Amino acid sequence: IDAHDDATLRAEMEELYPADISGILYELDTDAARYLLALLDKKVGSEILTNLEVIDRREFLQSFTSEELAHYVDEMDSDDAVDLLNEQPIQTREEVIALLSDREQARFILDLLHYDEDVAGGLMQKELIKINLNTTVNQCIEEIRQQAENVENVYSVYVIDDADKLLGRVSLKKIVLARKNAKIADIYEEDVIFVETYRPVQEVAEVMQRYDLDAVPVVNVQGRLLGQITIDDVVDVITEQAELDIQAITGITGDVEEEDDTIWKLVGARLPWLIAGAVGSLMAATVINNFNTQLSKIAALAAFIPIIGSTGGNVGIQTASLIVQGLAEKSGLSATVGQRLAKMVLVALVNGLIIGSLAGSYCLLIGEPRLVPVVSLALLAVVLLASFMGTITPIALNRFGINPAIASGPFITTVNDLIGIGVYFLIASLVLSI
Amino acid sequence: IDAHDDATLRAEMEELYPADISGILYELDTDAARYLLALLDKKVGSEILTNLEVIDRREFLQSFTSEELAHYVDEMDSDDAVDLLNEQPIQTREEVIALLSDREQARFILDLLHYDEDVAGGLMQKELIKINLNTTVNQCIEEIRQQAENVENVYSVYVIDDADKLLGRVSLKKIVLARKNAKIADIYEEDVIFVETYRPVQEVAEVMQRYDLDAVPVVNVQGRLLGQITIDDVVDVITEQAELDIQAITGITGDVEEEDDTIWKLVGARLPWLIAGAVGSLMAATVINNFNTQLSKIAALAAFIPIIGSTGGNVGIQTASLIVQGLAEKSGLSATVGQRLAKMVLVALVNGLIIGSLAGSYCLLIGEPRLVPVVSLALLAVVLLASFMGTITPIALNRFGINPAIASGPFITTVNDLIGIGVYFLIASLVLSI
Repeated sequence: IDAHDDATLRAEMEELYPADISGILYELDTDAARYLLALLDKKVGSEILTNLEVIDRREFLQSFTSEELAHYVDEMDSDDAVDLLNEQPIQTREEVIALLSDREQARFILDLLHYDEDVAGGLMQKELIKINLNTTVNQCIEEIRQQAENVENVYSVYVIDDADKLLGRVSLKKIVLARKNAKIADIYEEDVIFVETYRPVQEVAEVMQRYDLDAVPVVNVQGRLLGQITIDDVVDVITEQAELDIQAITGITGDVEEEDDTIWKLVGARLPWLIAGAVGSLMAATVINNFNTQLSKIAALAAFIPIIGSTGGNVGIQTASLIVQGLAEKSGLSATVGQRLAKMVLVALVNGLIIGSLAGSYCLLIGEPRLVPVVSLALLAVVLLASFMGTITPIALNRFGINPAIASGPFITTVNDLIGIGVYFLIASLVLSI
Repeated sequence: IDAHDDATLRAEMEELYPADISGILYELDTDAARYLLALLDKKVGSEILTNLEVIDRREFLQSFTSEELAHYVDEMDSDDAVDLLNEQPIQTREEVIALLSDREQARFILDLLHYDEDVAGGLMQKELIKINLNTTVNQCIEEIRQQAENVENVYSVYVIDDADKLLGRVSLKKIVLARKNAKIADIYEEDVIFVETYRPVQEVAEVMQRYDLDAVPVVNVQGRLLGQITIDDVVDVITEQAELDIQAITGITGDVEEEDDTIWKLVGARLPWLIAGAVGSLMAATVINNFNTQLSKIAALAAFIPIIGSTGGNVGIQTASLIVQGLAEKSGLSATVGQRLAKMVLVALVNGLIIGSLAGSYCLLIGEPRLVPVVSLALLAVVLLASFMGTITPIALNRFGINPAIASGPFITTVNDLIGIGVYFLIASLVLSI
């Protein structure tokens, strides 16, 4: 690359898939990456830009003029083009749209910019193949020839009426196998699963997984066919949602990556929950300090502070994560909150008794028999309370439209820590009458 | 259903998609479900069985005879058939295979039974459309007509030579648009991404996501085309992996569901990590007990046990989850362990100083100025140690082929709890000379 040996580079790049060239770009500095991209075919270049990670792409494209951007955006699928433009400042966005030489693409993009990222409309692409009900297979093939240029993967051909209303679909397989003069009206399938533009992307992902679809048509409220969502975009949604859930559980805020982001960004992503946890623990410290006199009498009481905290935290996280999983699946009839609580209480009782006896035996082992009832009772209570919190917190968050996975994270451990310590010392002062 | 009104039920079921009927079956008891299934078309019935969750399916099918099973297995895609048979006892499995009326299906299944579930061979289906290089488009369409009956979604037609070696692919779009007498050799694409039978499924999922593929052909070491993997199976792999990661993080062992499983199963899924956590905390209790005399002198020391434990746990989980995420992405060059550690130390220093000052100020607030250096120093040390553990644990687990997500779970909190308590009391006795 340093030698600027255009011919060799071009030949080498031709051997590679765009996704692989994207990988190479990550390892180059901005100038080298721009040089390499300029060498490539416009179509390949636009695919590479589509593949780049959002954060890197935004940075990389800062040095591009609107003309250069338009050059690549012209070649993209409309949904990818909109994603890229949404990352740009408004002025650049409008300049690029004005500069597009493919006016149909410009119209597609303007249509799609209306939609939020998290509904079906924001995920769909305008490129698709549609055919009027009254055409023959032969005319259909001619239409495919004309429309197919823009459409990367043809999954099926959508059948519409004169008002653009979605009526059904014909698979390419059927078209290949049909007689040339057969009517589309006679061979198309009326049963077609579609989604409305306003459906949340999570719902779209569920529908596509449930019915094993490769692509799903998107319609507006009047049933007019507006676009389609393909499975590759949905796979990205599923992967992203899983990452978000894991970040919520592990107490990381914002989308950061350990390798790519700066130290300040990484600190910022961790601090909120660390501070929340610290504040919660300092509240627990205040509780403990109130039992100062009891502690100086029986110092061994302090030894069980960790098991109270960790058991409460672990039970809370386990319970919450099972509830979150249940909420996400929505399969069949959901159990009522009451039924969930009843089952939870039983499971907690068994677990609490086992952990309580374990800790009770330890008390005997270290020669503190008077602590046996305190520690085992406290643990049983902690397991029950933690299970209760782990059950209701995600359900409550979900009702308020907050990602319930947060409930499996530091929030629940902090709250349970605090509750647990309070219960422990309360039981201690009651049982030991100190 | 109770009225056994066959005609009405059949008519109603015809309105529904198989995936929806599966949902209904979950709400029926076994006898009603069997009755309903028997009413349905064989093809629809086999799709429904394919859609059922593994645990429910195993239970439901226990009452089926091998003949009945064979009846449905005949109609399934070979990969789904193998999944279902693998859940049955060996005797049933062999009986069913012997009873299949579709002998090609039986051969397909026997081929696929060799492969482990977690490699490409275990995920592939034998159904696909392949065509010899030397045929014309017209012959190709004829071949599709013959082969397509078994193939649900035709993504593309694979091109092979006389020895069944994979040479490339032709999209259905190209076939639709090509002249009838064109040679396949002239229109097919040589660049085709494939996977070998022995590739881990995770790798297959990555390849398909990276190149946005709907289907990928599977070849053996000699390059012979053996089957294909379709995107819907890979979506299932991705979803399952995400669920496994979340279970590992939240300390749940085994695949349980809060709504469906029995209380004993739920208890069993939680107990291992609860007990591990309890044992860790009791080891911490032993450490604390060793500092009994110091504690009775300065009872306020006990108040900071929770913040030491929770900060260590939270930092450890955060760090580990970012490292796990980095390990999973493998994008570009991976940073070395040294580089990761250096960055981690800096982030930990900043976070440790902030949390340390916060807790230090609290000491002043409660009128314990002598504890300021102890608590802040201990927290700084805890954050550093927890970050270190959070960095090396997942990397080490990953090297030994264990799911590194485990490192973001109760394991790391337990270990960090123990280390933290030790460090805290050590610093306390050094600084306060008690």
